Amino acid sequence: MLPELQAAILDLNARYAQAIDDDRLEDWPDFFTQAARYVVTTAENFERGLPLGMIYATSRAMLRDRVRSLRAANVYEAQRYRHIVGLPLVEAEADGAARAMTSFIVVRVMHSGETSLFASGCYRDRIVREAHDSALRFAERVVVLDSRQVDTLLALPL
Amino acid sequence: MLPELQAAILDLNARYAQAIDDDRLEDWPDFFTQAARYVVTTAENFERGLPLGMIYATSRAMLRDRVRSLRAANVYEAQRYRHIVGLPLVEAEADGAARAMTSFIVVRVMHSGETSLFASGCYRDRIVREAHDSALRFAERVVVLDSRQVDTLLALPL
Amino acid sequence: MLPELQAAILDLNARYAQAIDDDRLEDWPDFFTQAARYVVTTAENFERGLPLGMIYATSRAMLRDRVRSLRAANVYEAQRYRHIVGLPLVEAEADGAARAMTSFIVVRVMHSGETSLFASGCYRDRIVREAHDSALRFAERVVVLDSRQVDTLLALPL
Repeated sequence: MLPELQAAILDLNARYAQAIDDDRLEDWPDFFTQAARYVVTTAENFERGLPLGMIYATSRAMLRDRVRSLRAANVYEAQRYRHIVGLPLVEAEADGAARAMTSFIVVRVMHSGETSLFASGCYRDRIVREAHDSALRFAERVVVLDSRQVDTLLALPL
Repeated sequence: MLPELQAAILDLNARYAQAIDDDRLEDWPDFFTQAARYVVTTAENFERGLPLGMIYATSRAMLRDRVRSLRAANVYEAQRYRHIVGLPLVEAEADGAARAMTSFIVVRVMHSGETSLFASGCYRDRIVREAHDSALRFAERVVVLDSRQVDTLLALPL
Repeated sequence: MLPELQAAILDLNARYAQAIDDDRLEDWPDFFTQAARYVVTTAENFERGLPLGMIYATSRAMLRDRVRSLRAANVYEAQRYRHIVGLPLVEAEADGAARAMTSFIVVRVMHSGETSLFASGCYRDRIVREAHDSALRFAERVVVLDSRQVDTLLALPL
């Protein structure tokens, strides 16, 4: 039982989701380490061990590029998203890092006001505490989506 | 990192949601301080800085009045609600109070059994520990709804 | 305030939901004590004090039987489920056990990719720490469903 680590990861997940839902996308890459791996894939592909996802980034810089593209494309202006992040399942690792699995759903609210269930899935994370500022960051975040209908998901950071 | 405060606010949110979902509305005002501000507004209005919401109360007594009206109007007899409250994002303040932001969704279950996503949004709270009974209470709870289709929301405490 | 107990129950709930969502149903009975009571009922029946649910088991062995039947019947091959478990409301009991109430929703993702809100409700648990391996387990889990449309629910462990 590690209440401190669990509380810290709970807090990390809460801040991550809030940044996206508040449309502060420019803050999103800062939740990752410099050399982080960020993958969005489907449960089907994940279970088959297919390494590449629909989205695949191997550095924070790639995530920054992604945010710039999203802003330029202006794709999801008219919608709002709301992440509901479940309870993190945390396992400490020998080197001070942690593995966490956390279920989530994303609700989409259209400009018209219509609310619908947009996505569900599980974050599979490797989380490290970085020495320079003592902050927890994702060294790896694999977003495993339950559904394989994912075209429209490509825009939103998940 | 403040696991104790985080745990306490997690507990406060869980009890708050449970009271509403169990239809113990008479307990609802007790989650607030005597002079609490309780506001329900839309994300659109919140971002524009419009101070007034669709619901605006500035005391626990106003919340009690509200519950009495709801009981008299008997408006939501036939439905059930289920709050799913996300992870609280907590920031301690200098004076012992805390700020918290917490995402939520509300599911509505009709008497027929039909289940739908009713509302989503974010609680923006100021929470204080009151001296007389050491309980945490909301000195301010601003309920920011993602959708602007809110007419039917007016009945339910959120 | 009991952050350790709360954290432990949060962890128990996270592992429980993950086991079901990962389709590791064979692990599911191990979350219960040998003589556990597991009941699935509706809010309507629960409030009327009707003791029997749609599903009623009084031992871990009955839960194992249930999993075997589910595997044999092969009923939910084509679907995925995602539990989102809310914040646990925990009360410690005198004998070292705890009572917990926890809201949940279950999302169903069809093979086609379609996502829908499948069920919502509240877990009402009695949780004990077992001496032989120091693990927390459910001595009682009453799953109270908000909706009374439950036919299709009978297959899935909730």
